[in-house]
Amino acid sequence: METTNGSLNRKLRMALCGGGQGAFIGRVHATAAVLDNRAELVAGALSSDPAKAKASAPAYDIKADRAYGSFQELMDKEKALPADKRIDFVTVATPNHTHFPIAKAAVEAGFNVICDKPMTFDLKEAEELQKLVEKSGVVFAVSHNYTGYPLVRQVREMVLNGEIGEVNAIRSNYIQGWLRTRLESSDQKQAKWRTDPKQSGAAGAFGDIGTHAYNLARYMTGLLPKDVSCHLRTFEEGRSLDDYGHAIVRFENGALGTVTASQVSHGRENDLFIEVDGTKGAIQWRQENPNELIVRRNGQAHQIYTRNGGPYLGALSTASSRLPSGHPEAFFEAFANVYRFAYDAMAKRAAGEKFEGRDTIYPNVYDGVEGMFFIQQCVASSKEDGAWVPLKHASARK
Amino acid sequence: METTNGSLNRKLRMALCGGGQGAFIGRVHATAAVLDNRAELVAGALSSDPAKAKASAPAYDIKADRAYGSFQELMDKEKALPADKRIDFVTVATPNHTHFPIAKAAVEAGFNVICDKPMTFDLKEAEELQKLVEKSGVVFAVSHNYTGYPLVRQVREMVLNGEIGEVNAIRSNYIQGWLRTRLESSDQKQAKWRTDPKQSGAAGAFGDIGTHAYNLARYMTGLLPKDVSCHLRTFEEGRSLDDYGHAIVRFENGALGTVTASQVSHGRENDLFIEVDGTKGAIQWRQENPNELIVRRNGQAHQIYTRNGGPYLGALSTASSRLPSGHPEAFFEAFANVYRFAYDAMAKRAAGEKFEGRDTIYPNVYDGVEGMFFIQQCVASSKEDGAWVPLKHASARK
Amino acid sequence: METTNGSLNRKLRMALCGGGQGAFIGRVHATAAVLDNRAELVAGALSSDPAKAKASAPAYDIKADRAYGSFQELMDKEKALPADKRIDFVTVATPNHTHFPIAKAAVEAGFNVICDKPMTFDLKEAEELQKLVEKSGVVFAVSHNYTGYPLVRQVREMVLNGEIGEVNAIRSNYIQGWLRTRLESSDQKQAKWRTDPKQSGAAGAFGDIGTHAYNLARYMTGLLPKDVSCHLRTFEEGRSLDDYGHAIVRFENGALGTVTASQVSHGRENDLFIEVDGTKGAIQWRQENPNELIVRRNGQAHQIYTRNGGPYLGALSTASSRLPSGHPEAFFEAFANVYRFAYDAMAKRAAGEKFEGRDTIYPNVYDGVEGMFFIQQCVASSKEDGAWVPLKHASARK
Amino acid sequence: METTNGSLNRKLRMALCGGGQGAFIGRVHATAAVLDNRAELVAGALSSDPAKAKASAPAYDIKADRAYGSFQELMDKEKALPADKRIDFVTVATPNHTHFPIAKAAVEAGFNVICDKPMTFDLKEAEELQKLVEKSGVVFAVSHNYTGYPLVRQVREMVLNGEIGEVNAIRSNYIQGWLRTRLESSDQKQAKWRTDPKQSGAAGAFGDIGTHAYNLARYMTGLLPKDVSCHLRTFEEGRSLDDYGHAIVRFENGALGTVTASQVSHGRENDLFIEVDGTKGAIQWRQENPNELIVRRNGQAHQIYTRNGGPYLGALSTASSRLPSGHPEAFFEAFANVYRFAYDAMAKRAAGEKFEGRDTIYPNVYDGVEGMFFIQQCVASSKEDGAWVPLKHASARK
Repeated sequence: METTNGSLNRKLRMALCGGGQGAFIGRVHATAAVLDNRAELVAGALSSDPAKAKASAPAYDIKADRAYGSFQELMDKEKALPADKRIDFVTVATPNHTHFPIAKAAVEAGFNVICDKPMTFDLKEAEELQKLVEKSGVVFAVSHNYTGYPLVRQVREMVLNGEIGEVNAIRSNYIQGWLRTRLESSDQKQAKWRTDPKQSGAAGAFGDIGTHAYNLARYMTGLLPKDVSCHLRTFEEGRSLDDYGHAIVRFENGALGTVTASQVSHGRENDLFIEVDGTKGAIQWRQENPNELIVRRNGQAHQIYTRNGGPYLGALSTASSRLPSGHPEAFFEAFANVYRFAYDAMAKRAAGEKFEGRDTIYPNVYDGVEGMFFIQQCVASSKEDGAWVPLKHASARK
Repeated sequence: METTNGSLNRKLRMALCGGGQGAFIGRVHATAAVLDNRAELVAGALSSDPAKAKASAPAYDIKADRAYGSFQELMDKEKALPADKRIDFVTVATPNHTHFPIAKAAVEAGFNVICDKPMTFDLKEAEELQKLVEKSGVVFAVSHNYTGYPLVRQVREMVLNGEIGEVNAIRSNYIQGWLRTRLESSDQKQAKWRTDPKQSGAAGAFGDIGTHAYNLARYMTGLLPKDVSCHLRTFEEGRSLDDYGHAIVRFENGALGTVTASQVSHGRENDLFIEVDGTKGAIQWRQENPNELIVRRNGQAHQIYTRNGGPYLGALSTASSRLPSGHPEAFFEAFANVYRFAYDAMAKRAAGEKFEGRDTIYPNVYDGVEGMFFIQQCVASSKEDGAWVPLKHASARK
Repeated sequence: METTNGSLNRKLRMALCGGGQGAFIGRVHATAAVLDNRAELVAGALSSDPAKAKASAPAYDIKADRAYGSFQELMDKEKALPADKRIDFVTVATPNHTHFPIAKAAVEAGFNVICDKPMTFDLKEAEELQKLVEKSGVVFAVSHNYTGYPLVRQVREMVLNGEIGEVNAIRSNYIQGWLRTRLESSDQKQAKWRTDPKQSGAAGAFGDIGTHAYNLARYMTGLLPKDVSCHLRTFEEGRSLDDYGHAIVRFENGALGTVTASQVSHGRENDLFIEVDGTKGAIQWRQENPNELIVRRNGQAHQIYTRNGGPYLGALSTASSRLPSGHPEAFFEAFANVYRFAYDAMAKRAAGEKFEGRDTIYPNVYDGVEGMFFIQQCVASSKEDGAWVPLKHASARK
Repeated sequence: METTNGSLNRKLRMALCGGGQGAFIGRVHATAAVLDNRAELVAGALSSDPAKAKASAPAYDIKADRAYGSFQELMDKEKALPADKRIDFVTVATPNHTHFPIAKAAVEAGFNVICDKPMTFDLKEAEELQKLVEKSGVVFAVSHNYTGYPLVRQVREMVLNGEIGEVNAIRSNYIQGWLRTRLESSDQKQAKWRTDPKQSGAAGAFGDIGTHAYNLARYMTGLLPKDVSCHLRTFEEGRSLDDYGHAIVRFENGALGTVTASQVSHGRENDLFIEVDGTKGAIQWRQENPNELIVRRNGQAHQIYTRNGGPYLGALSTASSRLPSGHPEAFFEAFANVYRFAYDAMAKRAAGEKFEGRDTIYPNVYDGVEGMFFIQQCVASSKEDGAWVPLKHASARK
């Protein structure tokens, strides 16, 4: 809940792309971005429909003169503003197929970017975007928001410190039920674009939430993947993309991972659930109950670590908390943690200081590339009945 | 996550009293107050120490000219500002003994107030404050923040609708452990004032969290109390106020309630836990897992209601949610719900419209009075070994 | 799952009083008694109706010549049998008002006794029974079966070893819902006698399950009580005995305890739940999930001890388990643990060895006396609006 | 807790093979078999070592003249006894590699059999055993004991009744940790034979517990499998068999299933956990908390069914319970339910009545065959990197 941005000593200025009427994640971004009072939302291109874009601005408290009719207008006009007025970063919270052009324009304009996931429509775009980011030197974060939970970061710290030994197995599941019926036949905007291959990309549930489950496994453990065998299914007849899928991932160190994603499991809400088995300990974490982490070791009582629970927790985990333990933090706060640590880099950049671009705490463009590679390879494997296909992309970081 | 304030059509302007370095709840107020983008923090008297007050302002993004050295200065200067600049409301987040003078000054200056709980230092102050509020016609909310949880409001809706029949029994518990040692001997600011009768009031744990537990029972059920028998204890030697207590409340309708509060239960974090037994159903809710509500009826499968879980929930509960079910909301969001519904009244007042002052969704000055009466009567009963003393105050509302 | 009885080297011979058609607890006793293959059921007086008593025998595999028409006949005839045929012990599983005459007859006949709780109809009978037991030297156990759970015994070991320091507070609750309606108006045998003051005794829910909750608190902590303030309620109109009650117990060491019992909480099954706060740690245990015990200490991760979970558990707890952890044990096995440890004493007695009569692992006649005193004093206090009445009986053991 | 065996009107007589010193499951069988007082253990061949076999008899209360030195002696001698003395059935609770010869001898001698799982050492034996059983007409049950849990049977009833619609996905997991170290290097008998391919068979963890997980999925849903892709791993260096494995099963109706088994997950005890997704509802059940079943449907509150919880449960589930809800039943009682329903068939056979041999409530020889086929095909698939191999055996029943 800091309000300072280090030596920058001012708030960062944000523009939002997406978030118009019927949108969900745009508002989440806007709320999370300012939770710690380190940024202010000053501009937006809130819809691909110019009229709607402008009409949506007041609800975000964006002034009329910075409520743009298109993302291109946003980039052009903001770039033309004086340095002490123009935005510092753009949040891209539009349907998947438009991430790339918007992010590209932002990066080329020299703006930092927070991009929703999956990062682009396909791998090609992702790889191009990576190059553009590297060239421009902007800060680029991808909102794999679940990495922002303090106890998720605790696991990463523990695994990298060797506290649970060598990782042998990972079981990552993301189970939802809201697409059990063909909601996309109604006017439900969320369902519509997510099940449309032209907007969502090559995968449905696996692109939308399977990538989160895979990213979480990668983030928690730092293990590098070798190959994948995947099985996608469409259980609701007539749907164009998968609504269920299961992948097996072989990691370079010999560990075996599984990634399961469902959007057709009745009554299941947002059950991202992961287990990691190491040679010295095992952990278990569930997003719907995010303030608890279960740590087990043979012959010992099971342990429940709680968010901000005490000195037994690592520094990063504690620094990612705002409230005392028992005062639950949740989705917004985790989301805000992605922003918060990206802000540190943005503030440094703005102040002309050095900042980390690759081994960041928050997910970045490299993770975004890897996510797109994951989708591409899963779809490819699934088409061949689960044949093994390589999963290690050159961009993969520990 | 609205940003509009109805026909008011602008953000409300907030001043914060308290919240300087070492404070906890001031920052929570500041964060919750703007979560829905319906208010902005523009002024403050952040500490009773003028220098510290001013030094703390940048962290809240308060400009120097509105960072006041005392609450009196704040009231005077703000009152003198033109109507389109001056604050709409004051949040009082200081130690208990200063709530009254600050709130009084704000009310007399015509500002709306959000006051932390317990509302005042003693009942006399509370009753006086009630009269001042009634006279001035301001909006006055008390931050019994746990009433802001959507599923708490769901229970209130259910009970008032008769869905669980006549209430026979309530068991409300608030169990913490952080004062198990004499933390107040160290420099811990939170512990220091809470255990000091001159700052905290007549009760320690019972004033700090017992009032929350009692308020929650009253809020959920609307039952009016008759009398109380109370037993306060101080288990940490040398402490001046109770750190554990238990009260039995007899309600007018014959129901039996218990209120238990502890701050010396090892490892317990913030475990506010309540059970309500009605003739047609029973409910159970736990603050540390706030997105679930258990509803039981004999002969039927137990039911778990989840926040924003579907059409089976009441309108108020659903309106108090921001995210889809499974995307957990927590402490900040509940806190913000107290603000959010108070904003509706403030916006109406500012727009010259009628608004509700007594039977509000958010806790108000009448609830604040009742809380102070509860503390006074519990302390009185405890001094006489648990003798029955009246608990129904004239201010009590259903 | 031993089958030996130490140097006795044969199975113990059991007689059952009660357990005829429509009974519940008689069959539980019969099952638990033989679970470890250390006893065999050879005789019975299964009903107060001689014809029904005989008719019920085959279902227990009791031969016709030892299926007696009355408990008196049972005692007379069994006593007359040769030593190598006659029973070793009598289990008393009849409605409360008949416990005393049966137990008395058994004790006077020199048979060991396992008696259901509450031990007798009133305190006077209980005290007389204690004297008879002391005089006769038989083994006498009372089936406060919840003390048989391995993790309950673990708590007792921990508290007596000082692992959680001095106990300050105990909260013991036993919540059921099955008497929410006036089931006793139907033919339901269980409801009928439990709500009839002539069969059940001075208390209803508090006698039936409040005693369990109190006994569990006493068993776990060994704290000696000083006095009690109690509030009994009858929420189902027309019922003759309490169906809800709450007692506050002050212990000699200054600890504050609460005991809550309900049989009118919708959908609640058999929720015996206890929390103990010590100066060095706190514990929490729930009967409906008996294979887990939560242990907490400030600043440390919470711990979940599991039944037979490893070397961190005490010897008594481990010795009270039969299956590896994760293979849940439950109600029958806990019940059998009361028998199992009573068998050790019975086998010693039969072999002419010394055995412990007072400080036993299983609940005994002294605990039974105390239970009756608890009921008597709770009823007395409740009649005077919760006046404090003494609770320390001369029989109380640590 | 009946004691009658229908028109048979006497107890069934049992012989136990296995169960000598250091054994675990033999004692479990012996305890479960008599829990309902419908059988008595009268004979045994408790060890492959004749001296040990005889020495172990008293602990089971088996008389010396029926404590045989070998299973062959048991069959011969028992067969020679008069009809009113000889055993009715043999329980086979020895290491896997000896199941077949013992079961074969028993079947050929005309005795009913309760055989531990996996049923035989390999598929060939299993298929031969099936033919022998069909020829002899004996009752043959396989102790897939988890099918005995009342709420597991509830799921089977619900799925077969169409209450959750068409099944699309099954996720079955069986996670343990006890073989995290090479326990087999010590004298631990359980670890030794389970990790020895000569005693255990072609698979380790997958044979030991993977089969349970697969069987549970099959039992709950009745879905017929099509093919399987499997990945076995040995994470403890030097171990001869798999200690971790994951299989994907494609069912004939298009459903996708996964089966995961681990014996190297730190601190995990016996976590058999299954989720089934249907078009109309989804269920979730966990063996370590077996008295609860979670049932979910979109738009409705989640439901927790409890064992014996009320009229909303099916007849079979209720008939498989012994105690009221809230009085937990567990491992022994579930185990006993396999026996209990097999006894019905045995009693009918003994009384010369017709009985069901194939579509039984308890797992039978056909399920045993299928289990062996599952192991064989999983091992085969795993050897080819997860190639798809057929999984439908001619013996498979719905």
